[in-house]
Amino acid sequence: MPKELYQPLGGNEMPRFSGPGTFMRLPSKPSAEGLDACFVGIGLDIGTSNRSGARYGPRQIRAESAFIRPYNMGTRAAPFDSLSVADIGDVAINTFHLPKTVEIIERAYDEILQHDVRPITLGGDHTLTQPVLRAFRKKYGPVAFIHLDAHADVNDTMFGEKINHGSHVRRSFEEGSIVGNATMQIGLRGTGYSAEDFDWGRDQGFRVVQAEECWWKSLTPLAGEAHRIVGDRPLYLSIDIDVLDPGHAPGTGTPEVAGLTGIQVVEFIRGLRGLNLVGADVVEVSPPYDPSGNTALTAANLLFEILCVLPGVAYR
Amino acid sequence: MPKELYQPLGGNEMPRFSGPGTFMRLPSKPSAEGLDACFVGIGLDIGTSNRSGARYGPRQIRAESAFIRPYNMGTRAAPFDSLSVADIGDVAINTFHLPKTVEIIERAYDEILQHDVRPITLGGDHTLTQPVLRAFRKKYGPVAFIHLDAHADVNDTMFGEKINHGSHVRRSFEEGSIVGNATMQIGLRGTGYSAEDFDWGRDQGFRVVQAEECWWKSLTPLAGEAHRIVGDRPLYLSIDIDVLDPGHAPGTGTPEVAGLTGIQVVEFIRGLRGLNLVGADVVEVSPPYDPSGNTALTAANLLFEILCVLPGVAYR
Amino acid sequence: MPKELYQPLGGNEMPRFSGPGTFMRLPSKPSAEGLDACFVGIGLDIGTSNRSGARYGPRQIRAESAFIRPYNMGTRAAPFDSLSVADIGDVAINTFHLPKTVEIIERAYDEILQHDVRPITLGGDHTLTQPVLRAFRKKYGPVAFIHLDAHADVNDTMFGEKINHGSHVRRSFEEGSIVGNATMQIGLRGTGYSAEDFDWGRDQGFRVVQAEECWWKSLTPLAGEAHRIVGDRPLYLSIDIDVLDPGHAPGTGTPEVAGLTGIQVVEFIRGLRGLNLVGADVVEVSPPYDPSGNTALTAANLLFEILCVLPGVAYR
Amino acid sequence: MPKELYQPLGGNEMPRFSGPGTFMRLPSKPSAEGLDACFVGIGLDIGTSNRSGARYGPRQIRAESAFIRPYNMGTRAAPFDSLSVADIGDVAINTFHLPKTVEIIERAYDEILQHDVRPITLGGDHTLTQPVLRAFRKKYGPVAFIHLDAHADVNDTMFGEKINHGSHVRRSFEEGSIVGNATMQIGLRGTGYSAEDFDWGRDQGFRVVQAEECWWKSLTPLAGEAHRIVGDRPLYLSIDIDVLDPGHAPGTGTPEVAGLTGIQVVEFIRGLRGLNLVGADVVEVSPPYDPSGNTALTAANLLFEILCVLPGVAYR
Amino acid sequence: MPKELYQPLGGNEMPRFSGPGTFMRLPSKPSAEGLDACFVGIGLDIGTSNRSGARYGPRQIRAESAFIRPYNMGTRAAPFDSLSVADIGDVAINTFHLPKTVEIIERAYDEILQHDVRPITLGGDHTLTQPVLRAFRKKYGPVAFIHLDAHADVNDTMFGEKINHGSHVRRSFEEGSIVGNATMQIGLRGTGYSAEDFDWGRDQGFRVVQAEECWWKSLTPLAGEAHRIVGDRPLYLSIDIDVLDPGHAPGTGTPEVAGLTGIQVVEFIRGLRGLNLVGADVVEVSPPYDPSGNTALTAANLLFEILCVLPGVAYR
Amino acid sequence: MPKELYQPLGGNEMPRFSGPGTFMRLPSKPSAEGLDACFVGIGLDIGTSNRSGARYGPRQIRAESAFIRPYNMGTRAAPFDSLSVADIGDVAINTFHLPKTVEIIERAYDEILQHDVRPITLGGDHTLTQPVLRAFRKKYGPVAFIHLDAHADVNDTMFGEKINHGSHVRRSFEEGSIVGNATMQIGLRGTGYSAEDFDWGRDQGFRVVQAEECWWKSLTPLAGEAHRIVGDRPLYLSIDIDVLDPGHAPGTGTPEVAGLTGIQVVEFIRGLRGLNLVGADVVEVSPPYDPSGNTALTAANLLFEILCVLPGVAYR
Repeated sequence: MPKELYQPLGGNEMPRFSGPGTFMRLPSKPSAEGLDACFVGIGLDIGTSNRSGARYGPRQIRAESAFIRPYNMGTRAAPFDSLSVADIGDVAINTFHLPKTVEIIERAYDEILQHDVRPITLGGDHTLTQPVLRAFRKKYGPVAFIHLDAHADVNDTMFGEKINHGSHVRRSFEEGSIVGNATMQIGLRGTGYSAEDFDWGRDQGFRVVQAEECWWKSLTPLAGEAHRIVGDRPLYLSIDIDVLDPGHAPGTGTPEVAGLTGIQVVEFIRGLRGLNLVGADVVEVSPPYDPSGNTALTAANLLFEILCVLPGVAYR
Repeated sequence: MPKELYQPLGGNEMPRFSGPGTFMRLPSKPSAEGLDACFVGIGLDIGTSNRSGARYGPRQIRAESAFIRPYNMGTRAAPFDSLSVADIGDVAINTFHLPKTVEIIERAYDEILQHDVRPITLGGDHTLTQPVLRAFRKKYGPVAFIHLDAHADVNDTMFGEKINHGSHVRRSFEEGSIVGNATMQIGLRGTGYSAEDFDWGRDQGFRVVQAEECWWKSLTPLAGEAHRIVGDRPLYLSIDIDVLDPGHAPGTGTPEVAGLTGIQVVEFIRGLRGLNLVGADVVEVSPPYDPSGNTALTAANLLFEILCVLPGVAYR
Repeated sequence: MPKELYQPLGGNEMPRFSGPGTFMRLPSKPSAEGLDACFVGIGLDIGTSNRSGARYGPRQIRAESAFIRPYNMGTRAAPFDSLSVADIGDVAINTFHLPKTVEIIERAYDEILQHDVRPITLGGDHTLTQPVLRAFRKKYGPVAFIHLDAHADVNDTMFGEKINHGSHVRRSFEEGSIVGNATMQIGLRGTGYSAEDFDWGRDQGFRVVQAEECWWKSLTPLAGEAHRIVGDRPLYLSIDIDVLDPGHAPGTGTPEVAGLTGIQVVEFIRGLRGLNLVGADVVEVSPPYDPSGNTALTAANLLFEILCVLPGVAYR
Repeated sequence: MPKELYQPLGGNEMPRFSGPGTFMRLPSKPSAEGLDACFVGIGLDIGTSNRSGARYGPRQIRAESAFIRPYNMGTRAAPFDSLSVADIGDVAINTFHLPKTVEIIERAYDEILQHDVRPITLGGDHTLTQPVLRAFRKKYGPVAFIHLDAHADVNDTMFGEKINHGSHVRRSFEEGSIVGNATMQIGLRGTGYSAEDFDWGRDQGFRVVQAEECWWKSLTPLAGEAHRIVGDRPLYLSIDIDVLDPGHAPGTGTPEVAGLTGIQVVEFIRGLRGLNLVGADVVEVSPPYDPSGNTALTAANLLFEILCVLPGVAYR
Repeated sequence: MPKELYQPLGGNEMPRFSGPGTFMRLPSKPSAEGLDACFVGIGLDIGTSNRSGARYGPRQIRAESAFIRPYNMGTRAAPFDSLSVADIGDVAINTFHLPKTVEIIERAYDEILQHDVRPITLGGDHTLTQPVLRAFRKKYGPVAFIHLDAHADVNDTMFGEKINHGSHVRRSFEEGSIVGNATMQIGLRGTGYSAEDFDWGRDQGFRVVQAEECWWKSLTPLAGEAHRIVGDRPLYLSIDIDVLDPGHAPGTGTPEVAGLTGIQVVEFIRGLRGLNLVGADVVEVSPPYDPSGNTALTAANLLFEILCVLPGVAYR
Repeated sequence: MPKELYQPLGGNEMPRFSGPGTFMRLPSKPSAEGLDACFVGIGLDIGTSNRSGARYGPRQIRAESAFIRPYNMGTRAAPFDSLSVADIGDVAINTFHLPKTVEIIERAYDEILQHDVRPITLGGDHTLTQPVLRAFRKKYGPVAFIHLDAHADVNDTMFGEKINHGSHVRRSFEEGSIVGNATMQIGLRGTGYSAEDFDWGRDQGFRVVQAEECWWKSLTPLAGEAHRIVGDRPLYLSIDIDVLDPGHAPGTGTPEVAGLTGIQVVEFIRGLRGLNLVGADVVEVSPPYDPSGNTALTAANLLFEILCVLPGVAYR
């Protein structure tokens, strides 16, 4: 039985500044049942080491997403003509206890992944990717992992804690959620606790692409390399909005100068078309540092671009 | 058959920064059917003469309302234990054509008022009160009207137009929607096109209480006077957030110095308990001028206080 | 020959968000010749000891003043029906040299006061009042002086300098510009370099009204006291916007908690009607700290209230 | 008789934060008579479908323009040594009625174009270009049209309305104001109501350059192509500030990721030198979303760059 | 041996916008040894249920405190002439684990209280008061407790957790840190999970003064009542900045309308003079919601007022 | 005797949002004695011609610098393992008198340069570079000078004054502080008082690289050219943050469109490795125009990159 297709509420039916508070004003659904893809929010910021505020990321991304229309003018992708997509709301985290929250998130994604659905997550701080990947591992085994970020997030601990937004990649590798030689880290830069911080991943087989390697270049070829590295493995894509230069994404908790442009990240996502993308997230949008709302809007657009490269999306 | 009671989604079930984008995170309903009271949004700002931005009023009020809990600690009102309340979403205005929008709003409230419900509106600019009152008139005949505002909104025309946010009270009186000697205007102040601007209402029998008459005083006695003026007539209450001093409500389009305090407006609303309040609105919240979000939060609280004095609300 | 009357450009002729950048959208005049009252801007902030930004005070006050209409609804004053009023632009200060700027301002007001005009100044930091008063002294002899401010501005020096925004009152007294026993200082509060800071004025015969003496009270009686103190002397009124509580005027350089309300300052200005007010200023509006624009709007309204109590203004 | 040349008020005569509120502090003139070029403001935002606020575009652009000096350091253009340029103020739109406003704008430009002047418009939302072009057509016949924008603005209707900021290009083509095969649209991107949205223009002969075609490239060659397409036709240039990436122009109503850089737009404008540019606009600056003022400042600079490529401008 | 007195770095020695980042630019000390009073920061916000950002409270309060001068002009208190006061820096909390952080804070105050010092804490969210009071209990036994707040903070749990910013008062009572009938809660208001939320304290003997009881009144008499309730017990004072009306303190995480004014809180603190105040805190300043910085400045002033009523302070 | 090495306070010892207000949370030292490099603040903005606010530059840069970790991930530089570095606080300028302030700065750097230290300055407006260079000249004789800026700062006078932020380069050349044919100016653009403004430097032998020459290019080759021009001379590097495009550095006083990217400035600084860099500054950060704090963070990172290319820094 074909799944039911849902269209975002259009601007000619309801002005863009009105209407429901869901992602792209899609229908709100209580679960992922019957969906091909779903948007999920995780309003988390107690795993962040610097500026907080990412707890409001999902709400603000949804608010700004009201402006996005259903067709991708750059690629002619028509995701809502092909896939059944809805917004299934937020995970009810325990905002007073990070380790418990990590368990809550894992259970929430266990439930989501019982359905034949590709969840796309609105963060929230990056700690969330660890429990999300645990759930993916149970369904798919270790996945390929593409990680766009200014930071490697491979600290063994921060302030003695194993669970936080700067250690999740190391944890995911240790837990077997991700495949070392099918992992890419792109956009890393800035400063570190040691000059070797980014080498830990290299030692595990990661393809680590520091920002300097990206400067002045289209990232379309790098997406080609991603095809070679990932192959036909199930792929999880995690985008920390701080992979973008602060000029493009001011509203985030740990910005780093000399980052990627919006063009590069869009190019890279578009270049992933054809891979078996089973889930994704865009994290670390912090609305209090984003007075124009444009960082959230940028995140919303990246989420839409991700939707457009899911398997099965028609192109006009 | 008793109506179904709905509780706002609680902070112990879902963190306040997450969850649905409805008023107080109440259930979203497609219509007012079966409800005792409903919240409705009208994202309108093309009727405003000065700063725009009120089109985002409903969205921002709803966002901030997530922090409001279900019991009124000042009065011990328990509205959700008594009434069936939900959020029925936004009116799909035509943001390119104000006269057509006025018709759209009228029709939307005609539909709402077919049900036995007391609608409470989140604005949006004050133009909306005119068509809302038209719909009330069809159901109730001319209503008593209490209008808290810095401005009288009795201009015959603005820029030659009869429909705008500064003429709606005159229109509502001319159209027979409101009863002149059952109308109060409270908080008027500032500057005018003539020194007699506020006298037009007096000539129609309005009780006009300029801000100066409110300074330094509790408004509880004025609420007592409202009981005498309104009697047992159906009452519509319209609060322009600019009745508050700009120190209390910076985020609005036409602020005026030396206005009312939050305390005074809360006192006044609470003092209306016992009247036959059939509908209400809080209008002119303009989020772009409200960087902290507190004007929207104040509006959300006033909307909750209004809910608490609807007939039938239990007090603990 | 009667002077020519000018009306502010009205909202029905030009939307409030458009039109000329003059105060209240009055005509721009190259000099004060032929005017009864004039508005003058001084974009100065190099005399300020804490936050800067007051250089943009005049521009922002003028921008926000576009919303003020010509009649005072609280008092029924009709200043533009009685007086010839225009905006004569800004003084071209030397923003790199404060002592020279003080001389420039003095010369500018010498020129203005050659005309039979009452200038009202938009600041700019409070240093400007010293040279303005010098020019007034040449025309009127020592004047009565009413000074609303959180600070006494009677430091002998600041950082060794005699000219700055915290010493101008002392300088004006020493220079004989103001009459000690016809001087009032109202709203003083906060912290000081010594516990006796405010007593210097008392020693010179000033009536010093600390903020604590104002709390919880209408300032109308204090305006009555002003009549007794000032008598029929020429009076200069200087309002530092920080006399207001930071809740009412956030956008200023040296805010102090527990200040006056907008109501109190409006009451006080209105209470000055009948005095021989020969000049006035509203100073220390700092737009970068005023994201909503409401501090500038408040200043604009106070400037209008001052205009309304000039001798010769008709009341309807 | 040679026209009179006007210089912007210089920073050594009046500090940049002071002085008149005109564009670049040029003289204010009541009409375009005797001018070679004039700046005109249209404070319009009731034609916008998403964020409002562009009504304050002209005021804020003028405020920020005070910082621009008279010579172009990149090209050595000296527009004020060659042309008679002034600011002729704002069009008095009807902010409560968009169709009437469109007529008002048309009449205003009919009047302006009776003079031998090239008007440059400060918007305001993009709806204004339609009536402006009507007036140009009456004078010049159909014009060549270069349109820099994130959006094609070729919707047949929006919410059923033919007049709005997303339909004006289609209207202008239908009305015969622009020549299809002398029309360029540059920078289009984002999402659409259908995958074919941008093809409508192609079907009319437009040269449509989507943003993807601009990425990573100097736009100087594209300006060369413009010379070939436009030839010696009268040319109108319309720049929606959202053609810029949100990182470069955050303060606008409908931002789209992955847009042009400031460098590209400056290159393109400079490349138009030699064409018969008869009029231009820069639109959609929305100050409430531009807390630093830099979007308005960018618009002011683009307006100056346009001035520099008008026919007759001397280069040093 | 008399303790060494330290003066804040004065504005005539170093401009207020420069100098060290300590509270009032006092000396920085590694411990409380030899001090009569000390300022301590706790940059905590992972205990907050709504808006985050209080982690930056101490830094921003210190930044704004640079403007405070050493003498209290309202009361002529001269704290630095009497007491040895310094800033001892921040507690190194574990921002990823709230229960551990509570232990860290307790240990830090154990250490501080080994000295004969009265610590005054800059928060940070209100969770911190629980461990601080534990340390006080070990030194003094159960203390009298005066709590100014919009909220009672007596939830048994929030989201199942016993440790959070809404449960600390209940915990402190249960743990025996505070004396029930020597506890006052002042300013409570808003909405609750049940109508009886504020009665829990009353049942424990607390004097609960809801905001409504404060409206329109000087709080000096209430401070008198505090003297009767507290007697000669050691007293701890905890001020949540949200006890203030949002108009006076916009920058906080859980604002509630219709709160206290700055005047009332200043009156109340001043009225506590003569009590055996052994420690205090001002908490919940959230800088991201405070664009002008004035909420932090207000907190800094309240902290100074608290310092002025410590036992032993001289008055001039 | 080897100098003592200091490490920035780490994020695992103290959360990044807490701890001392020094640059990178380095130790605070009363003088430069015993240091290889030191950070110095100059909170100056009375030399600025447009927007003020740079007086808060040093404080905000230090606040944001707390997020920088000790190793450079792009270059593997380890400055704190090699050099003795600390923060020596702010120069106590006279904020009411610019010429005196220039003398104060000169004397302060005379004192600093008595030590064998390379000072790196946090501005503050650009006027400060003139007196800093005077002190360098006394120690080193005329130095090579690399100047990244949107403006040439070679005005003979501004408003008749020889000392201001737009004349310092001319003054430094006239005073013999800098070597004309060892001076580079990079990034110049925008508008000028004459078309020849930038040629004055060329006439003195400067290598002037207008922004147009930088567009679309890595600046690594230009750094190579710097090596040839500077040779083994002592080099002073001055970076006006406005050399960056406003999209990358919104928070500054005189922004100009079409500027450099963060990448380009980082490339250029890194390319200076090996030169005899004896001092540097980063100036013109204006926090009131930088709501996210990211301009200050960018400046902090550039300051760190400068530290990393000082002679003697180890690379891992």
